[in-house]
Amino acid sequence: MIPDKTLERLILYRSSLNKSLGEGINSMYSHQIAAKMDSTPAQVRRDFMEVGVTGTPRKGYVIQDLLEKIDTSLNAKNTVQMVLIGVGNLGRAILTFFAAQRPRFHIAGAFDLDPGKVGRVICGVRCHSLSELKDVVGQHAVRIGVITVPSGQAQSVADLLTEAGVRSIVNFTQTRLTVRSTIHVEYVDITLLFEKAAYYGGETR
Amino acid sequence: MIPDKTLERLILYRSSLNKSLGEGINSMYSHQIAAKMDSTPAQVRRDFMEVGVTGTPRKGYVIQDLLEKIDTSLNAKNTVQMVLIGVGNLGRAILTFFAAQRPRFHIAGAFDLDPGKVGRVICGVRCHSLSELKDVVGQHAVRIGVITVPSGQAQSVADLLTEAGVRSIVNFTQTRLTVRSTIHVEYVDITLLFEKAAYYGGETR
Repeated sequence: MIPDKTLERLILYRSSLNKSLGEGINSMYSHQIAAKMDSTPAQVRRDFMEVGVTGTPRKGYVIQDLLEKIDTSLNAKNTVQMVLIGVGNLGRAILTFFAAQRPRFHIAGAFDLDPGKVGRVICGVRCHSLSELKDVVGQHAVRIGVITVPSGQAQSVADLLTEAGVRSIVNFTQTRLTVRSTIHVEYVDITLLFEKAAYYGGETR
Repeated sequence: MIPDKTLERLILYRSSLNKSLGEGINSMYSHQIAAKMDSTPAQVRRDFMEVGVTGTPRKGYVIQDLLEKIDTSLNAKNTVQMVLIGVGNLGRAILTFFAAQRPRFHIAGAFDLDPGKVGRVICGVRCHSLSELKDVVGQHAVRIGVITVPSGQAQSVADLLTEAGVRSIVNFTQTRLTVRSTIHVEYVDITLLFEKAAYYGGETR
């Protein structure tokens, strides 16, 4: 396993290197990459050793090779199948967002308790009842579950996702989840983020 | 100014206390609040002293009073006016999300370079050209600018927002922004988040 912080940096390198490649740059030195990333050349070299790439004194790093190795390490060439639970306003927003992220990220199914939503195609994705969760996860080899239900339902949805066989959960609610240690949880609290922005943007300071 | 970590906790207390109030609970002890928040009673008491509230040995904290004081400290009763720059897929997702957040958060205007979008109402919000940014920010006393443009345009958009007079920026791109010290920036990197979830949910471990 790549450590969490290294993983984050590798994902950011990849985005930056792809951009440089798009601008016609074929190779870069560690200090040039570090400058774009608010990092140090030593950190950059350490991170790339993690994916098994070393630069040469003459050309530095060949970007195409580096991207290849990073993608392999991140397992970033496969399509990632996801399910989303909770087709409210935030859920619809996320369905809308991922509609254009194909083929890398694909939402195999959406789920909601509301019988008025079940069976419909919403923002491009079919909405199922929760009783079908296990089948959809199994059929599409779904690895990620996205939780966009009200906070009070988050834990029971996390339990259903775990039972259905997902490996990672992206939790958009404010509820801290209790899951077995093999399940990875990413938290993103949109409300907290905007409340903070509002506070710092307010008149009170 | 409330310190950043205290601010985050106060926002989370508020959400939790509102829920308890909705369940008919009128007062709580610090240890009960701490248990819901993965915190300690001492931390809870320190945080509430920050907003000028102390509990009593008999009833603990009166939730209604506490919420009142937290809201005042966070300046959380006013409507927060925002603008959003970049009406692509992510931008539309965020417009959709905030359509239902009224009256607390209100998007006063959306902005895009594409002449095909300018003048239209998209996800409930009028789309303007960037030349109108300063006017819209001024007219609606906008405090927050939301950046959902491609990464390469993020810095120039941040400069325009600063010049127009916003106080806070919520940056959904991967670009680290350089802004004057009075401008607060919140970063949220949706792609990074899902890439991490994909890695930990992958087959490689």
